[in-house]
Amino acid sequence: MTELTDALRLEESGTGWAGTLTNDWAIGDAVNGGLLMSLAATAVARSSTAAGGHADPLTFSGVFLSPGAAGPVRVEPQILRSGRSMTTAQVSVSQPAGDGSVERMRALLTLGDLTRYADPVQKTVAAPEIPPPEHCVSARDAPPSTLTESGFLKRFDARMDPATIGWAAGEPSGNGELRGWLRLADGADLDAIGLLLVLDAFPPVSFDLGSVGWVPTVEFTGYVRGVPAPGWLQLRLHTEHAAGGLLNEDCQVWDSSGRLVAHSRQLASARFPA
Amino acid sequence: MTELTDALRLEESGTGWAGTLTNDWAIGDAVNGGLLMSLAATAVARSSTAAGGHADPLTFSGVFLSPGAAGPVRVEPQILRSGRSMTTAQVSVSQPAGDGSVERMRALLTLGDLTRYADPVQKTVAAPEIPPPEHCVSARDAPPSTLTESGFLKRFDARMDPATIGWAAGEPSGNGELRGWLRLADGADLDAIGLLLVLDAFPPVSFDLGSVGWVPTVEFTGYVRGVPAPGWLQLRLHTEHAAGGLLNEDCQVWDSSGRLVAHSRQLASARFPA
Repeated sequence: MTELTDALRLEESGTGWAGTLTNDWAIGDAVNGGLLMSLAATAVARSSTAAGGHADPLTFSGVFLSPGAAGPVRVEPQILRSGRSMTTAQVSVSQPAGDGSVERMRALLTLGDLTRYADPVQKTVAAPEIPPPEHCVSARDAPPSTLTESGFLKRFDARMDPATIGWAAGEPSGNGELRGWLRLADGADLDAIGLLLVLDAFPPVSFDLGSVGWVPTVEFTGYVRGVPAPGWLQLRLHTEHAAGGLLNEDCQVWDSSGRLVAHSRQLASARFPA
Repeated sequence: MTELTDALRLEESGTGWAGTLTNDWAIGDAVNGGLLMSLAATAVARSSTAAGGHADPLTFSGVFLSPGAAGPVRVEPQILRSGRSMTTAQVSVSQPAGDGSVERMRALLTLGDLTRYADPVQKTVAAPEIPPPEHCVSARDAPPSTLTESGFLKRFDARMDPATIGWAAGEPSGNGELRGWLRLADGADLDAIGLLLVLDAFPPVSFDLGSVGWVPTVEFTGYVRGVPAPGWLQLRLHTEHAAGGLLNEDCQVWDSSGRLVAHSRQLASARFPA
């Protein structure tokens, strides 16, 4: 049992699945949205395969309705369409509140068989050349102390390209780009569902534009394009448009074989000093 | 009444909205997915504002469950969260079939007030330099005859950059990029909801990689970033990863003032000759 498989443990419960959120995956008191995404995808994959459908997440689009907190969590998948090559589903993640429950996230997923889409490669984009992990800066040394103390950061070994870490010393480049490496701190390798977590695991790219504080996600869409090879994952985050405090954050993930295995875009809300 | 406002006409009906799909917006027998998206956003905006919520689509994420056909259509919005600055909703688009109905699309939307996010611009990307519309190639002359005869293409005046139109003569560049201009054929200007239609209105970018035939959308996520100024819209489509017949298609839209007003990513399924 690794730290991540432990966090993604679910038991059948009525029409859905029951699990537990912990502060081990929280930043401050809010459980990371990427963990909710991986948890939701786990539940959908199990409901889908139990009905003879597909197992690998191809697309994940979610809206975040309230921050997840430590405690019990319910995941309710609904299969919308069972096709020959793909299964489409909706999923709701909620937590008990008073006599009822409060929804944390709702999402739409497409599942398929990732091995079908490995080859041939008609077009791709290579990972940028960056220093190897041992010459990069550990993310735990870089962000403000409130983040450093979060459980979430301790779950990862993240190494930032020194060229994109100026913001940690109060000197954001203004380019809106972060690059680096990521793996789980306990050494476990990530699978297709774990990539959803990876896509939201780096510091916000808005830090490189000088934003301060928390950067809540409005909407997140991630595509998993391949099963990752074991080892370090390389990440590149960038934004193409930030205005009035809203920005897109695009993330690309390459595995240790150099293959693009996931990419995502989220709309996020950032605070910029006047 | 313009061609687009006519197509987006909806009447209150029970818990949702009722409208009509026509072949005027179809490619072959399938009503364009972008029209379904604009129709769904129209219904959500009306339900939202009727409840005191927001009107402008900020994010739209949809999965396509079956192709829309000419005939009656129902749109059922569900408000998930009414916040101070944003309203979040789910929406289902369906059509009658036999004694019941069949769902065409399900989507998650975030609505807000776009004027709040116009300034200041912290970072953006400029439109590429391309020849003016009068020196570009009309899309109606370019695609295969089946597309040329579609109602959908007649609704637009689309002009393709000659540098990215080689595929129409059987010589795709392999770059995976299309550039050009777009406006409605009847001269009406596009608003924020119309931008959702625009994001899916160009020929598939996979044509520039040599794909043939229909390119069904698996998932589509579009962000509207600003209210477009009147006049021509400039579009750039590109893909960063196409493998095993699945590719992302990213679209960027700039208005006549040069502002990035929308961008999207879709996962689509394309057929490549062996």
